[in-house]
Amino acid sequence: LAIPIPELAERIERGEPRAIAKAITLADEGEAAELLIRLYGKGGRARVVGVTGPPGAGKSTLVDKLTRTYRSKGLSVGIVAVDPTSPFTGGAILGDRIRMQDLTSDEGVFIRSLATRGALGGLSRATADAIEILDASGKDVILVETVGVGQDEVEVALVAETVLVVLVPGLGDEIQAMKAGIIEIGDVFVVNKADKPGADRAQKELHAMLTLTLGHGEEPPEIVRTIAESGEGVAELVEAVERHRELVAKVPAGHGRSATERARRRTRERLRSIIKDQVLRRVDERFLARVDERTLDALSARTVDPYTLARELVEGA
Amino acid sequence: LAIPIPELAERIERGEPRAIAKAITLADEGEAAELLIRLYGKGGRARVVGVTGPPGAGKSTLVDKLTRTYRSKGLSVGIVAVDPTSPFTGGAILGDRIRMQDLTSDEGVFIRSLATRGALGGLSRATADAIEILDASGKDVILVETVGVGQDEVEVALVAETVLVVLVPGLGDEIQAMKAGIIEIGDVFVVNKADKPGADRAQKELHAMLTLTLGHGEEPPEIVRTIAESGEGVAELVEAVERHRELVAKVPAGHGRSATERARRRTRERLRSIIKDQVLRRVDERFLARVDERTLDALSARTVDPYTLARELVEGA
Repeated sequence: LAIPIPELAERIERGEPRAIAKAITLADEGEAAELLIRLYGKGGRARVVGVTGPPGAGKSTLVDKLTRTYRSKGLSVGIVAVDPTSPFTGGAILGDRIRMQDLTSDEGVFIRSLATRGALGGLSRATADAIEILDASGKDVILVETVGVGQDEVEVALVAETVLVVLVPGLGDEIQAMKAGIIEIGDVFVVNKADKPGADRAQKELHAMLTLTLGHGEEPPEIVRTIAESGEGVAELVEAVERHRELVAKVPAGHGRSATERARRRTRERLRSIIKDQVLRRVDERFLARVDERTLDALSARTVDPYTLARELVEGA
Repeated sequence: LAIPIPELAERIERGEPRAIAKAITLADEGEAAELLIRLYGKGGRARVVGVTGPPGAGKSTLVDKLTRTYRSKGLSVGIVAVDPTSPFTGGAILGDRIRMQDLTSDEGVFIRSLATRGALGGLSRATADAIEILDASGKDVILVETVGVGQDEVEVALVAETVLVVLVPGLGDEIQAMKAGIIEIGDVFVVNKADKPGADRAQKELHAMLTLTLGHGEEPPEIVRTIAESGEGVAELVEAVERHRELVAKVPAGHGRSATERARRRTRERLRSIIKDQVLRRVDERFLARVDERTLDALSARTVDPYTLARELVEGA
């Protein structure tokens, strides 16, 4: 069943869903390096939009509606949903991913969940790989949805050109407690469920917070109100994403928020995640292979301590 | 405010709560290697019990009641609670950790939460470090509670001598879906909330499942029914933990389930997590330091691919 890499690459470039699925599985298993090297020249055209926010903010519904809006403009869409999983069930812990059933029959849409449990070596590396594959397959827009839990998706958000941070009214304390890190990664902020009480207050608090952290002469990121359930505001959100792209393109080179600098940060993150992955693979092969039972027993008996031993192994490598 | 390491080590050995807290913070930041080398000879006496299971199984309440039971036997207790955190609030996502308030006034109990977000380099390394510190501080029993989400706690469970897997009735499907990995790490199984309908069924299904995976001539792990809320069954659970220790001690050396083999696995895991940590620190220092803006721009422009570059950097190191 192994398809030769050149053939798999060709099929991906033709946009064949099964080839894309196969390639993302390979990436998830950390086995797609050769394929990705081959595909690398083909990518770089898709718009990559990250969607993050706390659990319950309505991210999945919003991604669904964003997809329909992009489709109505004739653009094809790839979706990567990043889920932490429970080792108890093997399933996603938050919300149901068996959604957008009617979208899956649309050939212009490809949906894939990546489970934190599955990603050998690193979630951010596997997610970035999946984006590469979808990009090479010719998808115009790639939506990356994360669950808002853990550190991983802060990293994942770094792969996107435009990051949407989705919040909801009534999480006033949540906004107060939001960390600077999240504020920094957000390019467009969304107040979803905007028909709920407290939407005005949430928007005001958010605006105040975003203004507070601005650099000299900088505009605050846009805040868009949506009701994802009904689709209200989603077209405006798509326009805000476009405006963000245009805005970034206009920032003079050398500025920290310029397109070049943003691309450098993404590229650096990408390189780091790949190096991390390769280096961790060597840990087992190179270091742990040298540790015999006698050494393990010495550690158990506490005649050797693992910190000193680790240092010797790593430095002697 | 920096306390010299020899002094900090002495204070920990005297069981000073503030010194223990300080040391665990250092460990969380990945800065406790020197301290841990010094403490290593002092540890190895505590019984380390892992408590894992799906969210909502009542693990926190059970840990609370286990602590009281051990205390009533005159044993001191250290608790390490491992939480994934939301980058949105910086807080724990599941349940409230501001619990066991009355226990914190007991000098024989030390409680510490470790957030996945905080642990630089690796949660399992930081958790194992915290266990070392509590061990060196003279705690008789160390309870390690994980949240049942993600891969991390499968690793964390490897640091414990006895792993309790906590389940509840009505999660029949959960039991069906439980992965072999979880079955393997469980030494004692707990059916908590045993006054709820379906407790008998849950126990039977669990028993059937545990029997299914047994090796030749092996006894299935014990199943203990508890009502953590009222404390019912907790004394029996403590006895089951003791029986597990005794059972392990009797398994002949050379057998995969013998005390020696179990200790080797734990030690190997411990060494791996430390090496991983040290190696990842070098990634930034050694590899990424060599990547200049021209290289990043070449990556962005896709004239160089990151997989090939990563390989060159790692191999040339």
